Amino acid sequence: MPDTKPYSAINFAQKYALFTEQWAPKVIAQMNDYQFKVVKIEGDFIWHCHADTDETFIVLEGQLRIDFRDGAVLIGKGEMFVVPKGTEHKPYARQEVKLLLIEPCGVLNTGDEGGERTAVNDVWI
Amino acid sequence: MPDTKPYSAINFAQKYALFTEQWAPKVIAQMNDYQFKVVKIEGDFIWHCHADTDETFIVLEGQLRIDFRDGAVLIGKGEMFVVPKGTEHKPYARQEVKLLLIEPCGVLNTGDEGGERTAVNDVWI
Repeated sequence: MPDTKPYSAINFAQKYALFTEQWAPKVIAQMNDYQFKVVKIEGDFIWHCHADTDETFIVLEGQLRIDFRDGAVLIGKGEMFVVPKGTEHKPYARQEVKLLLIEPCGVLNTGDEGGERTAVNDVWI
Repeated sequence: MPDTKPYSAINFAQKYALFTEQWAPKVIAQMNDYQFKVVKIEGDFIWHCHADTDETFIVLEGQLRIDFRDGAVLIGKGEMFVVPKGTEHKPYARQEVKLLLIEPCGVLNTGDEGGERTAVNDVWI
């Protein structure tokens, strides 16, 4: 087996241990023009949508609910969901959820809605 | 809370329970023009590369090793790695590994190499 340097895997638990703030996605990897972001969320977010892109949620810990105007989906640990572009949605977590988000570079957490809940984009950890 | 229909999460364990064959990626979701594929692998794959795209590996069970011409990376459960485009690599698993692959639609498992290990593409489960 060759030397393992300089390649190293990205460990989700290690990344989550680096921060406590909620609703502030941190980029941990990039694939072409898509980014992988870890984020901790708890409570209600705002209704928003992303007009130009789908958005992927993978739950690593806890249970996420995403409300839609005509329904909702529960996403538990070991599950994923892709919110189709242009679909209004509102994430909610009764207790803290650790998420992995996958979306194109430049996508803001509040989508087309903006406002005070908009997190700084492209923060790497 | 609204009715949970018709939205439902994708459960990785449920998807893996649907098949036993190794080295045959199955699509479970799509985000824009990218697909999420579950695959079980064991043993050695072939050297190959994808000239035009990065490729993401997330390990859901087991330990994956990816060899490069100048090194290697070990990727355990709860870890991910993005193989940069144009980088020759060879996946290896001493025992069966359950992987989640993320890559653009149309990407073949053997990349530009082809050959008998090439799996049928775009098989959904």
